[in-house]
Amino acid sequence: MNLESALRYSHTLLDQVVQPGDTVIDATVGNGNDTIYLASAVGKSGHVYGFDVQSAGLEATKTQLLLTGLLNQTTLIHDGHEHLSNHLPEDTQITAAIFNLGYLPGSDKSVITHAKTTISAVEQCLKILQRGGLVILVSYYGHPGGKDELNHLQTFLTKLPQKEFQVLNYQFMNQQNDPPILFAIQKR
Amino acid sequence: MNLESALRYSHTLLDQVVQPGDTVIDATVGNGNDTIYLASAVGKSGHVYGFDVQSAGLEATKTQLLLTGLLNQTTLIHDGHEHLSNHLPEDTQITAAIFNLGYLPGSDKSVITHAKTTISAVEQCLKILQRGGLVILVSYYGHPGGKDELNHLQTFLTKLPQKEFQVLNYQFMNQQNDPPILFAIQKR
Repeated sequence: MNLESALRYSHTLLDQVVQPGDTVIDATVGNGNDTIYLASAVGKSGHVYGFDVQSAGLEATKTQLLLTGLLNQTTLIHDGHEHLSNHLPEDTQITAAIFNLGYLPGSDKSVITHAKTTISAVEQCLKILQRGGLVILVSYYGHPGGKDELNHLQTFLTKLPQKEFQVLNYQFMNQQNDPPILFAIQKR
Repeated sequence: MNLESALRYSHTLLDQVVQPGDTVIDATVGNGNDTIYLASAVGKSGHVYGFDVQSAGLEATKTQLLLTGLLNQTTLIHDGHEHLSNHLPEDTQITAAIFNLGYLPGSDKSVITHAKTTISAVEQCLKILQRGGLVILVSYYGHPGGKDELNHLQTFLTKLPQKEFQVLNYQFMNQQNDPPILFAIQKR
């Protein structure tokens, strides 16, 4: 076995929590990898709400979902994740949400996630998270503005109330090139 | 599922690496929990070398190993882990080593592990570690002197060459009372 990358470990954790029939959120659809993974995990009786501000990725993801028969259990929303509550049915409860923070590889590097909107979106997810559920953040921070978002996020996560949440930090320590850091918030 | 504690996750990682027939090291026998776990994992064809500076724990561990039929595959050594190379057969290769850093719960709190001897012992383990093998450190640092050891250890780990080793940091961020931190070094 090899120690899992942050990205791989995010799926290892989600695999243990997400069940068929669940409602989950992909807060940063990007190229759609996590959306497709989640749509497969929740199955036809579950639902994925996917958000992104960039329409090109959403269109490509929609095509992939259609080709793989996963489109029915997915709603793709062209809006920033800080508005996610506006787009969910009333009384929605989720078992998981995933955020890939930074910029979308292969696209416009000036379009990045920002601390303020990221934290607002995480707070909205935590409010509707079921007990035992997970909000996972994979932070890429090597780009301009990345470390600022990371610092604000770490301060926010450190202050989450221990009685309500566990917050795990999983990261490699001796690598060049700022490998991504995984944060996992579990509701008690 | 619940996010695993650092201690629980240390066994999850070891479970994936340690096989029957392996030679492994428990660098801090303490109350013997890890020694017994490792002796069971390597089986009758493998071997565990266990080190501690406190004889009471070693005696109690020996009794436990005897009662559980695991004594034959275990050598308990009453010496500091910084001398571990002196006690191993020539050309020994290991697949894993585990360190529990801090003081032994329920015993003399003035007997603690120290950065210099800890790092020396880790270096000796890395020299004889097989490819894919793991050296795991679970750092309890809430006691006097604990943060000093932790800081030196983090500096050492951050500098381990990326081409030879991966170093993972696994810790909870929002807990009071300094919960233990897990570090896992894997040889590439």
